[in-house]
Amino acid sequence: MDVNIYRKMDFETLKGTKDSLPKDMIRINAALDVIKEQFEKFGFRPFDTPVIEYFETLAGKYDEDAEIVAEIFRLKDRGERELGLRYDLTVPLCRFVASQKQLKKPFRRYQVGKVFRDGPVKVGRDREFVQCDGDVVGQAGVEVEAELMVLFYETYKKLGIDAVIELNNNKILRGALLQNGFAEADLQSLILSIDKLKKVGMKGVLKEIGDKGLEIKDAEKAIKILESKSFGDIRKLAKNQELIDGIDEFEKLIKLIKPYVKFRINFSMSRGLNIYTGNIWEAYEAKGKISSSIGSGGRYDKVIGDYAGSGEIVPAVGISFGLVPILACLKSGNDREGVTDLLVVPLSEDVVPVCFEVASKFRDKMNVEIYYGYKIKQSFSYAEYLGAKEVAFIGAKDVGAGKFKIKNIATGKEREESLGVRS
Amino acid sequence: MDVNIYRKMDFETLKGTKDSLPKDMIRINAALDVIKEQFEKFGFRPFDTPVIEYFETLAGKYDEDAEIVAEIFRLKDRGERELGLRYDLTVPLCRFVASQKQLKKPFRRYQVGKVFRDGPVKVGRDREFVQCDGDVVGQAGVEVEAELMVLFYETYKKLGIDAVIELNNNKILRGALLQNGFAEADLQSLILSIDKLKKVGMKGVLKEIGDKGLEIKDAEKAIKILESKSFGDIRKLAKNQELIDGIDEFEKLIKLIKPYVKFRINFSMSRGLNIYTGNIWEAYEAKGKISSSIGSGGRYDKVIGDYAGSGEIVPAVGISFGLVPILACLKSGNDREGVTDLLVVPLSEDVVPVCFEVASKFRDKMNVEIYYGYKIKQSFSYAEYLGAKEVAFIGAKDVGAGKFKIKNIATGKEREESLGVRS
Repeated sequence: MDVNIYRKMDFETLKGTKDSLPKDMIRINAALDVIKEQFEKFGFRPFDTPVIEYFETLAGKYDEDAEIVAEIFRLKDRGERELGLRYDLTVPLCRFVASQKQLKKPFRRYQVGKVFRDGPVKVGRDREFVQCDGDVVGQAGVEVEAELMVLFYETYKKLGIDAVIELNNNKILRGALLQNGFAEADLQSLILSIDKLKKVGMKGVLKEIGDKGLEIKDAEKAIKILESKSFGDIRKLAKNQELIDGIDEFEKLIKLIKPYVKFRINFSMSRGLNIYTGNIWEAYEAKGKISSSIGSGGRYDKVIGDYAGSGEIVPAVGISFGLVPILACLKSGNDREGVTDLLVVPLSEDVVPVCFEVASKFRDKMNVEIYYGYKIKQSFSYAEYLGAKEVAFIGAKDVGAGKFKIKNIATGKEREESLGVRS
Repeated sequence: MDVNIYRKMDFETLKGTKDSLPKDMIRINAALDVIKEQFEKFGFRPFDTPVIEYFETLAGKYDEDAEIVAEIFRLKDRGERELGLRYDLTVPLCRFVASQKQLKKPFRRYQVGKVFRDGPVKVGRDREFVQCDGDVVGQAGVEVEAELMVLFYETYKKLGIDAVIELNNNKILRGALLQNGFAEADLQSLILSIDKLKKVGMKGVLKEIGDKGLEIKDAEKAIKILESKSFGDIRKLAKNQELIDGIDEFEKLIKLIKPYVKFRINFSMSRGLNIYTGNIWEAYEAKGKISSSIGSGGRYDKVIGDYAGSGEIVPAVGISFGLVPILACLKSGNDREGVTDLLVVPLSEDVVPVCFEVASKFRDKMNVEIYYGYKIKQSFSYAEYLGAKEVAFIGAKDVGAGKFKIKNIATGKEREESLGVRS
């Protein structure tokens, strides 16, 4: 067997997973640092759960044929336990809350971690990716939702992204349909059709609804409500109590966030009708640099109780930052290969101890790397490759003179520094 | 079926894995932040590899019965590919370097990430844990090792740990045995016995060596060499070239690190004879707060070439911080449950917008959380639970007066702040 051909395959990563090179990781860490800092600015507490969970925990109330369950990476340990890799950070949060009867509430936590899905690989859809979630468990009311929206918007701003948050309330969608005589059982299917309003227009949506055997005229009346442009307009059409409640919640939220957040009201926008119980949101880059959502969330007061099997209402609300679309918005071309600010280059082995002193002194203020190439041209090329700002060549002559030069790589300018003697 | 009993099991985490509560995560993040910052101070570049790799990649040159291979969590994807979860960060580094023929060297990278081992669970030994590694690939010489030792020691210092680094060179161990007539094939087994010197003493070690059918007298002579107390002493006994080379490398390293690092020379200390090819190190807490090593590493010039199947020498040297023993050293009793500095408490719903303004203003300087409990006693208890430093109760009266008070929780002292009007 030809060892090299045999080995060649081993050096690949699995499709849908990848190495993050320093250039990528510098950008990823910069974004995650901002996100984590902002979460803490708003009192969100760091939290982590295992990557490996019992399969039963992950599958939750779904049956084995559900799409999300089919995407779970399954495995067994030595004890033949049925396990899986987490596919999101919400199920582990539900498991944790369900396990902690004495949990102090509100539980305001954030979690950043890899999740895994054995699904089809597409552009922007990996099988191993990072999720960044913040949730507040045990706090009802739109006030905390408004605070989350401020956090959401502020974080994009700090990341350098001009964001706009599109909002709605699932009760409005449900209420508008219920008001027009539709049955509970048909709501999910109707909303999936209405969600295509932008893409296929009213005609297309109504045709699809008709094809499903549902009443076109009633649907048209419901959609007319959802196409209202203001709270004033929609209120005039609202009779169903759930619709009215949804409008109240939504308008209260908007009043609170108005001074802080750039937003867009969209009464026909929908998100996970079987998950979200109130206000919902989706963040976009305002200038349309990328078309996909860069973050999302909403209130989900029934998920934890359903998961726990108690059916209890456990108020919960969350936001999730989309790391991949965020990085796509931030593509700059100014990426650095390294983190080194100053590259110190001894020109011979005997001056290495002096270079250690210099590096040690400058590390108080910057990132300093020593390069043991001993050659000027090669060292300079390495400094440029890293994206270092400055380079200092130190030879025996400099040591004799008690001083050395630091060269700014971009400007070519040099400044002199003295070699302090270490006692 | 009783739903609650059935569900009870689901809410557990798998043995050997655990949730990291905010209190834990605050400590973990504080330690990791220092470690990452120090790596970057020394020019180490952030890097990441997938959690899921081809099983073949992970097993590498080991056969399936090897202990480490038996501990790999194995899984398959939809395509029936044989996969596994990474059990360390070194194998993925080798895979990456082997895959990148054009990799710019030295490749100075650090990686912090979870690794997984399906082994027996003991105290301090989980099946899912974080590794923090820094390696330099493609740089020979003890100079870079010395720089790593400075980084190693400085990081412990910044963490608040009084560390001492114990060092040796695997060539010294090998050379001392070869000089006394032992065969290459017996070295590994002999060194495993010699490693017990501290625990069982010379007599015990020699007995074990005798039981293995190896020459006791020759072993005793070799151990005498390894018990030398200084470079002067060991040099007098050294005739074998590998032993002499090891002493040279080791002494050169010690000279370079002397001004920067608290260290301990131990010629009989050993670490992975089939991995490390030169200087080796193990860090300990200096006052013996905990007995286990808090970090380790060494030079391993043959591992990457062996892994790639080329047999090429690829100079490589690394350090690894032990997060669990580091956290054990840092146990303080001052742990905080939360990250909130100031808890702002509206005393009624109508003052929430004012509380948003206050929170927004103070977030420039600190972490501010709003608590919607509306009750003084309950809010104060929540602030104390979180470990918040200050609390501000804001009611309609305060809004009328245009000012409010911030109370320091520890001292009980209050200071007055004005309510700036937002335009």
